[in-house]
Amino acid sequence: MGVCHTAHGSFQTPAFMPVGTQATVKGMTPEELEGLGAEIILANTYHLYLRPGHERVRRFGGLHPFMHWNRPLLTDSGGFQVFSLNSLVKVSRNGVEFQSHLDGSRHFLGPEKAIEIQQALGADIIMCLDECTSYPATQETAEQSLRITLEWARRCQEAHRAPEQALFGIVQGGMYADLREKSAEALIQIGFDGYALGGLSVGEDKDTLFRVVAHTTPLLPEDRPRYLMGVGLVEDILEAVQQGVDMFDCVLPTRNARNGALFARFGKIIIKNAKYADDPFPVDPDCSCYTCRNYSRAYLRHLFLADEILALRLNTIHNLHFYLQFMRELRQALAEDRFGCFIDAFRARVPGESLRDPREEDELGPSPSQRGRAHFSQKQSCALAQPNLLKNL
Amino acid sequence: MGVCHTAHGSFQTPAFMPVGTQATVKGMTPEELEGLGAEIILANTYHLYLRPGHERVRRFGGLHPFMHWNRPLLTDSGGFQVFSLNSLVKVSRNGVEFQSHLDGSRHFLGPEKAIEIQQALGADIIMCLDECTSYPATQETAEQSLRITLEWARRCQEAHRAPEQALFGIVQGGMYADLREKSAEALIQIGFDGYALGGLSVGEDKDTLFRVVAHTTPLLPEDRPRYLMGVGLVEDILEAVQQGVDMFDCVLPTRNARNGALFARFGKIIIKNAKYADDPFPVDPDCSCYTCRNYSRAYLRHLFLADEILALRLNTIHNLHFYLQFMRELRQALAEDRFGCFIDAFRARVPGESLRDPREEDELGPSPSQRGRAHFSQKQSCALAQPNLLKNL
Repeated sequence: MGVCHTAHGSFQTPAFMPVGTQATVKGMTPEELEGLGAEIILANTYHLYLRPGHERVRRFGGLHPFMHWNRPLLTDSGGFQVFSLNSLVKVSRNGVEFQSHLDGSRHFLGPEKAIEIQQALGADIIMCLDECTSYPATQETAEQSLRITLEWARRCQEAHRAPEQALFGIVQGGMYADLREKSAEALIQIGFDGYALGGLSVGEDKDTLFRVVAHTTPLLPEDRPRYLMGVGLVEDILEAVQQGVDMFDCVLPTRNARNGALFARFGKIIIKNAKYADDPFPVDPDCSCYTCRNYSRAYLRHLFLADEILALRLNTIHNLHFYLQFMRELRQALAEDRFGCFIDAFRARVPGESLRDPREEDELGPSPSQRGRAHFSQKQSCALAQPNLLKNL
Repeated sequence: MGVCHTAHGSFQTPAFMPVGTQATVKGMTPEELEGLGAEIILANTYHLYLRPGHERVRRFGGLHPFMHWNRPLLTDSGGFQVFSLNSLVKVSRNGVEFQSHLDGSRHFLGPEKAIEIQQALGADIIMCLDECTSYPATQETAEQSLRITLEWARRCQEAHRAPEQALFGIVQGGMYADLREKSAEALIQIGFDGYALGGLSVGEDKDTLFRVVAHTTPLLPEDRPRYLMGVGLVEDILEAVQQGVDMFDCVLPTRNARNGALFARFGKIIIKNAKYADDPFPVDPDCSCYTCRNYSRAYLRHLFLADEILALRLNTIHNLHFYLQFMRELRQALAEDRFGCFIDAFRARVPGESLRDPREEDELGPSPSQRGRAHFSQKQSCALAQPNLLKNL
């Protein structure tokens, strides 16, 4: 538990960052995000570089005034999207050549360029360009990929000029413990304002994911934020917080909302299901969000089936509230030194049903709650997350 | 100018009703609509009968609780959509047989059924089933169509059982003055809580439209609301108010918003245009809406090109504010006995550029502002609208 201070105010950790890919968290106004308790959000450099263009955003004084968000903001480096949204990429030591997914135009992204773009976008926290090691990868491939990532990290740190922007390094190394160690050590030697775990949640099973998290997180400085990129479900966040992770981002709450999958403490509601057609109850009768206070499952189902914009809004409000409320309760438990009880209570209220995206069912194997139970029971004790306090970032 | 009282509060006239076809004004929450000053909204019986079904809505206590809207609400009869959304309709004296535009299923809508459905939906104002006379139509066709509409009106009034719902009759008769007279007289003899002008804005030119409005409106009782269905642009509303019309509905502000066409006092902004790419100004620097207070044209253009949900929301907020602010100013002018000045000021601030939907350009002939000027100058004087005051509707 801690507080991170930035040029646009502070945010508490452990923090969940709603994803605002194109300079907007889909469907939400900044005021609504603030009302939901979002203290920091993420925007995607790749998308904003292509459209509307970082130079344009720079002329507006950066993303904050452009998108009317006046709180902490993080941009990724663009690397992950370059690799995941493009089939035609050419990686060299200098950077990566890729085609725009919008119009096929060719572009080049190197470490210096990634910093230049992110400086123009003006986020409070910016990320080093990294090569996200594919999965599965041989040790040799992972090592080669790591070598590039470390060189880029050094060059990003050299190119970094804006003192009001915190620069985070990204640990890579595939699923190999020794490479993760090497990566962490090298990054710490360069010295960054925070450290991220990258190259995870890329198709590996959950045990592998958390083996890497458990191995890598303790290697990172306790007084700097540790950020697990792209994770995940609240049960995954819970487990990662136990390992000492401070920051998270994931599209799950917002994307699931738009797909009509709504999180609740007792499981997940697929709102289009016929069983909700006449259901007068809110999504979660214990939830205090705007959606649950005012609308029935039946009405939400109607809006969703009718392709109404309001469906996307109300669903997004609910799912973001679910995540951000979870983070508030988690921080409260940490502050009151009762994290173990929090974990027990969490497991008790998530029975057999999974909270995860049903479309991922096949890829990920057994349900997280089942897996979670087995995993937790193997532990000797549920060690508390090490509080990370970062002042005047 | 007047006030209409309903079971869900009152609304001032002349009133503009935002359209909430599927039990939601697209993209808006009820709280936002209230904040924008919407005092009454419209929902479409045809759509709600098909989905989610009027019996389902009845079980929820009607549309008001179902959609979380606690102010006045009007439903149309469904007739217009039956004719406009379906190619396979079979009209008889008893009603109209049609196929669902959703799944092709066959349905029957007669006057009794239209009332039954609207009673289940529970709006404060409900409409008689009418046959919207096609345009152009021969006098014989129009007369035949009118005969059916009048029979249906009688049967609707007989079927009408809910005293808390006001029932409006709909004047038809095509573009024929004598048929409109006949229609108005017959409806008045049956006796309704209000009277609508139907079968207009169906492809006729503006001069024809306003010839019919000017001829028909004075035939209708002054102490009952007069409702011009489906109209229109603010300049059309202005002209119709001069003729004594009290109520309006139109999809223009909301649909145009979703298409990126934004109304402003000086003309219309097509937000995707390249000239707005770096434009730091709000849509209308004189506008006080949430969108104009917080966002640049450049950001709105970015959101629109990026297909972001927030684009639809911000655009809709602006366009609805534009309409509802116009109605407030218009009512204020009527209240202060300076409607003539209001018209002059309106014309002065709309120069050559039209406010209308550019996609309608070809259908409608010369721009409304040009046409409006010619038309107004032919008048001897700009007579004020006759105030219609309807108490305890």
